[in-house]
Amino acid sequence: MATIDANPPSGTRDYLPAEVVRRERAFATIRRTFARHGFEPLDTPAFERLDVLQGKYGEEGDQLIFKILRRGEHEATGEADLALRYDLTVPLARVAARYGSQLPTPFKRYHIAPVWRADRPGKGRFREFFQCDVDVVGSDSLVADAATIQAVADVLDRLGLSGFRVLINARPALAGLIEAYGVPDGLAESALVALDKLDKVGVDGVAAELTERGLPPAAIDTLVADLGSVDLAGAVRERVADTARGAEGLAQVDRVLDLVGKVPGGEVAYAPVLARGLSYYTGPVFEVVHAGLDATIAAGGRYDGLIGMFQGSDVPATGGSLGVERILLLLEEAEADGDGVAGPDVLVTVMDEEGAADALRLAQHLRDAGFDTDLYAGGGSRKLGKQLRYADRRAARIAVIRGAEERAAGTVAVKDLASGEQTTVGEAALIDHLTDTLDR
Amino acid sequence: MATIDANPPSGTRDYLPAEVVRRERAFATIRRTFARHGFEPLDTPAFERLDVLQGKYGEEGDQLIFKILRRGEHEATGEADLALRYDLTVPLARVAARYGSQLPTPFKRYHIAPVWRADRPGKGRFREFFQCDVDVVGSDSLVADAATIQAVADVLDRLGLSGFRVLINARPALAGLIEAYGVPDGLAESALVALDKLDKVGVDGVAAELTERGLPPAAIDTLVADLGSVDLAGAVRERVADTARGAEGLAQVDRVLDLVGKVPGGEVAYAPVLARGLSYYTGPVFEVVHAGLDATIAAGGRYDGLIGMFQGSDVPATGGSLGVERILLLLEEAEADGDGVAGPDVLVTVMDEEGAADALRLAQHLRDAGFDTDLYAGGGSRKLGKQLRYADRRAARIAVIRGAEERAAGTVAVKDLASGEQTTVGEAALIDHLTDTLDR
Repeated sequence: MATIDANPPSGTRDYLPAEVVRRERAFATIRRTFARHGFEPLDTPAFERLDVLQGKYGEEGDQLIFKILRRGEHEATGEADLALRYDLTVPLARVAARYGSQLPTPFKRYHIAPVWRADRPGKGRFREFFQCDVDVVGSDSLVADAATIQAVADVLDRLGLSGFRVLINARPALAGLIEAYGVPDGLAESALVALDKLDKVGVDGVAAELTERGLPPAAIDTLVADLGSVDLAGAVRERVADTARGAEGLAQVDRVLDLVGKVPGGEVAYAPVLARGLSYYTGPVFEVVHAGLDATIAAGGRYDGLIGMFQGSDVPATGGSLGVERILLLLEEAEADGDGVAGPDVLVTVMDEEGAADALRLAQHLRDAGFDTDLYAGGGSRKLGKQLRYADRRAARIAVIRGAEERAAGTVAVKDLASGEQTTVGEAALIDHLTDTLDR
Repeated sequence: MATIDANPPSGTRDYLPAEVVRRERAFATIRRTFARHGFEPLDTPAFERLDVLQGKYGEEGDQLIFKILRRGEHEATGEADLALRYDLTVPLARVAARYGSQLPTPFKRYHIAPVWRADRPGKGRFREFFQCDVDVVGSDSLVADAATIQAVADVLDRLGLSGFRVLINARPALAGLIEAYGVPDGLAESALVALDKLDKVGVDGVAAELTERGLPPAAIDTLVADLGSVDLAGAVRERVADTARGAEGLAQVDRVLDLVGKVPGGEVAYAPVLARGLSYYTGPVFEVVHAGLDATIAAGGRYDGLIGMFQGSDVPATGGSLGVERILLLLEEAEADGDGVAGPDVLVTVMDEEGAADALRLAQHLRDAGFDTDLYAGGGSRKLGKQLRYADRRAARIAVIRGAEERAAGTVAVKDLASGEQTTVGEAALIDHLTDTLDR
């Protein structure tokens, strides 16, 4: 027993208190902001029946599903009947099929929850990680796309991640682009994958990749010229607009831009080569990047073909996903200097066994007055030094100390743990003193 | 695909929005109150390595563990290497072994999270359900036991469950009771199981069960006389105190009663036949019952032998568990008349395509002013009736309506959805009007 590995399973994490507090605080802001926008929370079980998940994520995705062994007499078969949630979209599709008539139409929901994927663990890649999805189910109106983007942008702003850019494109505009530049049909997807890397590899990099992927030189030359022009968006737009599908897509983009308008903390712009998982999306798509952080922190789009998967009919839907694990990392880095996670206001020490009941009373009195109050609950020696080290560990701001002497005198010693200053105050003055010291 | 079962897996639940809001609200109160008492949150992965869990819950418990199939080339072996969390105590023991020196001593933590057990599903019995544990690890002082009970009682009070009774006993007092009444050693556990049912089956029921379990008639007669006496606790206490172990146990009970003192919203009392999972506990034990609700809503005690399971040494620990699923049910029943879950303050309608951008702007304006504001994001016809039905579904309080006419006039129609009253106000007066109407 003593030799057991005490680490969490590979690819998973234990969250110690400061981390839980940091994560919960971000989740609370996200929940609050989505509620402010009229989105409702949904939650579903950690596992689904295997047949609900299997076949929904492609061959590669299927390999990454954590499967749960059948139980009891069936365990010996080595078969699985359940599997851990792989994303939040399939559960939403199941919920839409199951409770359709009980839900408002459209159904504006968000879902913050862990998902599990048996990926090879690596830096920043986990087997258990949170997703945060926001979707509008049952509306074909671009108002739904705009409302989603507005809510996502508001969340990012309220999380303190201002300075982001919301990049918008539309699936038909991409089809128009392919047509306008004379990309052969069979190479369309391949070309879009290469173009999507423009921000990362630059024009020359894209040109090299397009060549490698076998695009006709004429198409590459025109593309490279436009991608390299000062007004990239304008140059590409002009050609895309010349095709019927391109014009349709640009109309979607312009409508969404118009509906979203200005967002606090960020900019919104047309991004002509933004592709985002082409096979999946059917209308507008978006991506939120943070220039200073060089990271995609949210993305989404319209996907009218997915949510109806269990209903045998199409259900229009649009949504987005916050890269919540990445966002949490960014927030952690941002507050790393200040540490950020506050401990209790007060630690009440227990100086002797006779004074323990008095200390518990005192702690409760301080809580009733609104102070977060820890009480030293350790056994063994009650040396003050040990209790102050505990207070330091807990990042408490004030230690309230009351030994036999103070009890007899009706006083309390109050130690400011930042400055080290200690003063003695009368019992009756304690709350006022703490209110002043803690600047309440 | 269309024929797939859209229900959640057997024994699990989907939480629709009102339910999520209700649960999150209770969890927030619990988190807030534990923080107020200086307890810190911990979180651990949903699954553990199988060897960490196996053998910890007895033969019956082992059967109920959800095991996860090995992946990739190993899947065909039909073997499991991981398993879903079965409780929150084993993960705490693993965390204590892994991060010991990084944690404060004592470590006061709470953990609210789902656990999974492959029990046969039934009324109120689920395969996925939340546990809420609070523990103090690393202290042998009864101050830790009292601090735990105080925090648990405060949580119950703040959840609105006042009127509870905290019943306290101690393992050595039970040993003393067995000795004092002349129960043969081999029948001790059996007798305690029968005695623990006193509240449910009454004195006669206990007597019948003790007879059935083979207790000597003399022991039963004395027990029944004391259990039937007006001052049950006093009668039993007197006999228990006559044994060495009993006296030790009563000293623990009295010390905890003294330290806990009065708790708001409830009473605290010695309960001489309270047993609670005897094999597990080593010191004081407690149970919180709600007379009006006829339910045990929290329980716990000292268990000095468990947390050290991965360290090869004993680590003193005491804690409690809130029956959080039961509590959530009670809260739901309590608020069933009022429905309780509030919708958005305002629904902004979208009357026509031309006015959509204006409506999104207006909604954002109201959010900035502090109103939770939903926006009708549906497509198809924009009939007002449909949008008002949506507002009703969402339990919105006010509908803000602005068609072409209102836009031209610089006004807004405001409909109170409870009274049905509709008034037209100028744009500039809207915020003040809503503030008045919503009583902000």
